[in-house]
Amino acid sequence: MAISPFDSVMFRELYGDAEAAALFTDTAQLRAMLLFEGALAEVQGRLGIIPQDSAFFIARAAREVQIDPAGLAAGTAKDGVTAPALVAAFRKAMEAPEHAKWIHWGATSQDVIDTALVLRLRRFLEIMEGRLEALEATLAQQAARHAGTVLAARTRAQMATPTTLGAKIAVWAAPLARHRERLAQMRPRLLTVSLAGASGTNAALAGRGTEVMEGVAAELRLAASPIPWHAARDTIAELAGWLAMVTGSLGKMGTDIIALTQSEIREISAGTGGASSTMPHKSNPVEPEALVTLARRAGGDLSTIQNAMLHAQERDGAAWALEWMALPALCMGCAAALRHARALAETIEANPDRMRADIDATSGMMMAEAAVFALSAHMPRPEAQALVKRACAEALAHGTTLGATLPGLTDAPLDWDTVLDPASYTGDAPLYPGRLTTGD
Amino acid sequence: MAISPFDSVMFRELYGDAEAAALFTDTAQLRAMLLFEGALAEVQGRLGIIPQDSAFFIARAAREVQIDPAGLAAGTAKDGVTAPALVAAFRKAMEAPEHAKWIHWGATSQDVIDTALVLRLRRFLEIMEGRLEALEATLAQQAARHAGTVLAARTRAQMATPTTLGAKIAVWAAPLARHRERLAQMRPRLLTVSLAGASGTNAALAGRGTEVMEGVAAELRLAASPIPWHAARDTIAELAGWLAMVTGSLGKMGTDIIALTQSEIREISAGTGGASSTMPHKSNPVEPEALVTLARRAGGDLSTIQNAMLHAQERDGAAWALEWMALPALCMGCAAALRHARALAETIEANPDRMRADIDATSGMMMAEAAVFALSAHMPRPEAQALVKRACAEALAHGTTLGATLPGLTDAPLDWDTVLDPASYTGDAPLYPGRLTTGD
Amino acid sequence: MAISPFDSVMFRELYGDAEAAALFTDTAQLRAMLLFEGALAEVQGRLGIIPQDSAFFIARAAREVQIDPAGLAAGTAKDGVTAPALVAAFRKAMEAPEHAKWIHWGATSQDVIDTALVLRLRRFLEIMEGRLEALEATLAQQAARHAGTVLAARTRAQMATPTTLGAKIAVWAAPLARHRERLAQMRPRLLTVSLAGASGTNAALAGRGTEVMEGVAAELRLAASPIPWHAARDTIAELAGWLAMVTGSLGKMGTDIIALTQSEIREISAGTGGASSTMPHKSNPVEPEALVTLARRAGGDLSTIQNAMLHAQERDGAAWALEWMALPALCMGCAAALRHARALAETIEANPDRMRADIDATSGMMMAEAAVFALSAHMPRPEAQALVKRACAEALAHGTTLGATLPGLTDAPLDWDTVLDPASYTGDAPLYPGRLTTGD
Amino acid sequence: MAISPFDSVMFRELYGDAEAAALFTDTAQLRAMLLFEGALAEVQGRLGIIPQDSAFFIARAAREVQIDPAGLAAGTAKDGVTAPALVAAFRKAMEAPEHAKWIHWGATSQDVIDTALVLRLRRFLEIMEGRLEALEATLAQQAARHAGTVLAARTRAQMATPTTLGAKIAVWAAPLARHRERLAQMRPRLLTVSLAGASGTNAALAGRGTEVMEGVAAELRLAASPIPWHAARDTIAELAGWLAMVTGSLGKMGTDIIALTQSEIREISAGTGGASSTMPHKSNPVEPEALVTLARRAGGDLSTIQNAMLHAQERDGAAWALEWMALPALCMGCAAALRHARALAETIEANPDRMRADIDATSGMMMAEAAVFALSAHMPRPEAQALVKRACAEALAHGTTLGATLPGLTDAPLDWDTVLDPASYTGDAPLYPGRLTTGD
Repeated sequence: MAISPFDSVMFRELYGDAEAAALFTDTAQLRAMLLFEGALAEVQGRLGIIPQDSAFFIARAAREVQIDPAGLAAGTAKDGVTAPALVAAFRKAMEAPEHAKWIHWGATSQDVIDTALVLRLRRFLEIMEGRLEALEATLAQQAARHAGTVLAARTRAQMATPTTLGAKIAVWAAPLARHRERLAQMRPRLLTVSLAGASGTNAALAGRGTEVMEGVAAELRLAASPIPWHAARDTIAELAGWLAMVTGSLGKMGTDIIALTQSEIREISAGTGGASSTMPHKSNPVEPEALVTLARRAGGDLSTIQNAMLHAQERDGAAWALEWMALPALCMGCAAALRHARALAETIEANPDRMRADIDATSGMMMAEAAVFALSAHMPRPEAQALVKRACAEALAHGTTLGATLPGLTDAPLDWDTVLDPASYTGDAPLYPGRLTTGD
Repeated sequence: MAISPFDSVMFRELYGDAEAAALFTDTAQLRAMLLFEGALAEVQGRLGIIPQDSAFFIARAAREVQIDPAGLAAGTAKDGVTAPALVAAFRKAMEAPEHAKWIHWGATSQDVIDTALVLRLRRFLEIMEGRLEALEATLAQQAARHAGTVLAARTRAQMATPTTLGAKIAVWAAPLARHRERLAQMRPRLLTVSLAGASGTNAALAGRGTEVMEGVAAELRLAASPIPWHAARDTIAELAGWLAMVTGSLGKMGTDIIALTQSEIREISAGTGGASSTMPHKSNPVEPEALVTLARRAGGDLSTIQNAMLHAQERDGAAWALEWMALPALCMGCAAALRHARALAETIEANPDRMRADIDATSGMMMAEAAVFALSAHMPRPEAQALVKRACAEALAHGTTLGATLPGLTDAPLDWDTVLDPASYTGDAPLYPGRLTTGD
Repeated sequence: MAISPFDSVMFRELYGDAEAAALFTDTAQLRAMLLFEGALAEVQGRLGIIPQDSAFFIARAAREVQIDPAGLAAGTAKDGVTAPALVAAFRKAMEAPEHAKWIHWGATSQDVIDTALVLRLRRFLEIMEGRLEALEATLAQQAARHAGTVLAARTRAQMATPTTLGAKIAVWAAPLARHRERLAQMRPRLLTVSLAGASGTNAALAGRGTEVMEGVAAELRLAASPIPWHAARDTIAELAGWLAMVTGSLGKMGTDIIALTQSEIREISAGTGGASSTMPHKSNPVEPEALVTLARRAGGDLSTIQNAMLHAQERDGAAWALEWMALPALCMGCAAALRHARALAETIEANPDRMRADIDATSGMMMAEAAVFALSAHMPRPEAQALVKRACAEALAHGTTLGATLPGLTDAPLDWDTVLDPASYTGDAPLYPGRLTTGD
Repeated sequence: MAISPFDSVMFRELYGDAEAAALFTDTAQLRAMLLFEGALAEVQGRLGIIPQDSAFFIARAAREVQIDPAGLAAGTAKDGVTAPALVAAFRKAMEAPEHAKWIHWGATSQDVIDTALVLRLRRFLEIMEGRLEALEATLAQQAARHAGTVLAARTRAQMATPTTLGAKIAVWAAPLARHRERLAQMRPRLLTVSLAGASGTNAALAGRGTEVMEGVAAELRLAASPIPWHAARDTIAELAGWLAMVTGSLGKMGTDIIALTQSEIREISAGTGGASSTMPHKSNPVEPEALVTLARRAGGDLSTIQNAMLHAQERDGAAWALEWMALPALCMGCAAALRHARALAETIEANPDRMRADIDATSGMMMAEAAVFALSAHMPRPEAQALVKRACAEALAHGTTLGATLPGLTDAPLDWDTVLDPASYTGDAPLYPGRLTTGD
């Protein structure tokens, strides 16, 4: 089936991501759940809570058994969660009732499902971190390469004053280091075992709950959870926010690339461009569009996850399931966006002729601020502004440029060629690429 | 893969819906797209725009050809849309280049994709309408059956005054008739062909665009589109709103059923109840939880679709794809919710003993308003309120009931047994079931 | 205070709307609530449920009394709703306890608050309808005026084939007629009295609830509510969806205007343009930006209203208040957007020179599709496509145009001047303005 | 006006928060903007960029001048931002043109508006941190106080096994420490000056931009911004996520309090309870409802802020304004929620009789898991489960309890009084309060 484009075989190369998706298949979920059950048995065997040989048997079976996800559909529909059906299937598959009875000892569905999620998120976040680093490195290279490439800054869809392509790219890259910093700070909160039993008290473990919980955490290399997070879902919300933030930053990059590659501007190129079915000359911005789509759709999932925080009492089936509805899609969107962003970053090429032509097409108006500031050294700023405004008006009226009108209106001793040269007015922009590695 | 629970083989009996899902598979999309291509060719053949025999050949092939969705993945990734790859695959599969060259004549990707969506939505909405009707009928029966079943109304989580189960069910059912009315009004706006060519002008059809568009609309039994809706997505937004509204109304029903079936209340039972993996006595409200989950998640998709309305210029790849991200999931959520709601509605059983016990447990406080209004016939209302308040306080203080304290505090000539009988104070509630068929 | 820009005195001319805002002030809410209380008393007096002279007294006082909203703050904080404090203040202000005791007889807070909302929404929707009509008329005029103004269509941020400014404007206008149609269909569902008493049964009205409810509905010129909508909030959700849809359609218009007025394009001008604090030459797209902002923000409120549909049992204080959080802002956003859209529509001016220059800047590539279709009359389409692709490549390589390369590559007997003239390839676009009045 | 309940004088004690609101008034915004302008002038004077005495004059005036927000409405409508009108009003108010011309030297609207926001957020976050600490302390006290108060855990709306009120409260409190940790980590990223000039290059500062930016940062005790964040809005998104998370955690607490204070349960009391206008016995959960409302509405604003991340090019008026639409409301909701949560936390009282009665009402079924685990020491777990299931069925059939049926069905040597005593089966729950101060 393919209700979600993330699951569609047609869309999988566009919105999907094989490496990340492998962590969110039904099978991957079951494998991670079995990993939890194996670790639980092992720890409980070691602590003498269940028989040692049963523990051994369960732990081995957890690694080896194959459970067909489709076989769990009826049970999942009946229970609203996958765990009881999985535990039953696992028990049956073991074909050793004397050992099987010790499976899932003292644990509840949420323990296994949430821990299995966290285990996969750990790997997922490693992948994301690697992609962030790679993207940062690529963008830093491109920023450095284009540190002196002058083009028009655009504010509020209007050409403003000059900037550099390197500065633009540095602005795309700067948040990524912050995202990695956030990730490092979030990890210990998020990557936490869940093991608290039916009501979050570990009562069934008869006073040894903390020991078991800590043992399983250690076994799975997760943090312990001194107070259960069954019903406190802030770490999931934090993750969702992080995923949306990363995707959002990349959506900004996509937005800018669409703007700079539109037919009338083409100041840069990036990505491969998609064919139109009827217009052979077009080069559709497929990857940057995907970045925008993925970034915007994340907002919907964010609001769903916010709802999931209102998790009633000790377990809330409706709120919990909201996470399943939104979190994997947020992960997938982030993964696909990082993939596309990297491909785009690697292929950014500047078109300096077009950049210069666009600046020139403003009749030099883009240098108006530069002129005002230069003149301000010789007259009050309002006077300078008025003068430049008049020069702009004359230039527009006569179809000429600011450079042609302004010098004649003032005897301020300025080197107008320099003042009105875009490259002379990029301020600190050329420095930004160099700050990427040191500044953040 | 299964990023979305709607696509998961484990979750498909819980959140999925086989009948609806069949309309949203990759294959179903391709079939509907081919249906469009076939109709287009047929109409163009009839009008002499393409050769008659090519038209015939294409139309037949469109019905017969099998295209593998997976084979379109690379093309879709390159183009950002499925259409060019499909058209290419269709051309190739026909093995008749002299006819194949007339495929998709003058049409653009959006024409075929949007029309293919609408064709499937038509069928989908028929199914939803049928389910709404069936659910309404079931709820109307249950409302009538329980027209006299007295239980406490709860306002703001507090027991208020008595009502009837029939009235409760009537409140669940009343919006459904409005949803069907809305559906009927929405249909002619939504079920509209898309056929306007590359830039929405049908220029490639050389003056015959309107003719072809109207012909294809007629062929596919859709409304014509005198002004193209490529970039005007209000009908999609309207549909999304309708789906969310239906799902939301059912979410309210789910919320109420969870509240009435909680352990401490159990005034009704409904659905099958899911097992807990460790607590044999529990009966988890699996279906009503699903109703709540599906209703809340719809809000996220709604905000995504709102974003999709900001569809730039003549076609916006990023905004358009937002629809693909959210619309099928909204459809699926609505379908699954209607399925669960029906199953719940059919199995509603009242537990009058529990209903009465809960009313009695308020020490008669629930009849306080009744007492105030009865007393108000004999004294000013504030006085009556003060009197009842005093009686309530005394009853609470002495662990007795309003019926034991109030009559002694006043000599108003009232038949207290009747005044304080819950069944005597259900107002118009018993009438609501009867208004379901006539009132709306 | 000004947590919301809609309430800020600084932002009120930008995002506010005096006419609409007047309906959503605290005072306006209280006035509408008093209107309900007056009508309720009048009807109950007429029916002999309360004393005739008290009814008269209450009804007159309801029109005359002045209640200070600030005085209700403490009561609202205590009760979570404004009604009890208002009723108390009203009673006190009447200074006639013998009459005052009959105020709000048998009604509940939700009756008066929801009906007061609906009364103001009625007026609000009249205003919106008027604005929609006015905007449609203005856009229709502009569309007609620019029916033959040729410019490049842009699909996926790329110049596609030619279209007309009239067609663009017609695409903006077409949804507005649908919005008015939806409004007309929504009205009878939405403009419905709420009067069902504490638990939605009208028990306090002792068998005369329906009579009173219908009387008050008639008095206030609202539809009756045979089954109470206290807890069935689909009509509010429908309204929210409508408001978001209207705002969304205008957001699309804003998006397009920003794109067409960007410095590099300036093919149209519209609105007044805002000054930059440092760049005198800039003309910021203030109004179209507001359209985009208002359209996008509506998505957040939509998801909030979806949550409000899950209204627990007979009254849900938390869900109900969600409506107060989101609905007035949606109303305000719609009103402000319609105001800005009208101002923009009235000031649209075309810049045909820029339009032509942009088309020419594509080296004639924009006419590639036209060439393909023209050639297809003389050779198979794939061959035509290949030929045109080659001509495009040559033109790009030699810095010349399609018109300079293509004719030499083929001996197809075509009048290339005509084939490659943009105005010859606008298809049905010139017809769309004329369809605005008749087609929808 | 009062489009937002946060701004309504009627609702200000319910949803408002005087201390936090004071930071978001129009006046507070202007004061903070003037603070920036003063600091900018001071630094530029010190660096010799503007005349020292003008700097002094501006800095003093910035502290003293009174600007009427209403006077900026027309300018804000024209420019789309408040800054140009403020700068003009400030210049005029100074009545010293020779100094006034140096105001805002080299800065752009976004510099002053964003820095003014950050300055107020700093104070706001201090307040929030204080409230979090106070709430944590109160909850920790209550958790400790109720460490041994036994009540039923509820999972999926069903009574599960026993837990303690202290554990419940610990689960509410545990995320708060994480929120404070997140706050500490977020601060250095968020509390960053914005000073980069018209296009984000500080070109107007002629090579001294970095110096000035760092100077102003130091003057205002903010972090420097080596790469401008004009168009990189991740820190705003992070803040929004944090606010929503805090509000969400409190919404969970509100949800639980509503559930535990519902008429049928009343196992705890908290808050003051609101009166019903017609039902004197009711005690509406006004504060916990507010917690739920504020938590859910935050989701809508989150999705709006996600959209704001797609900030086009060097400045995007439409995206930027989205932040103004959503961020103050998120702040306000968080502040009001913390206020209500504290008031609730302080007033939590347990009703141990009701707790025990509810447990007893399950006929001992709640102890089924305990029985299963106790029996499992003497027989295989499936056997134990089957036995307990049978005992439960018998108890239900005969209207007796598990304690009456189970012992007779087995000769396992168990002390049934202890096994079936709820207090003996609370597992680690009594330990959680003690982990609040040490565990996190």
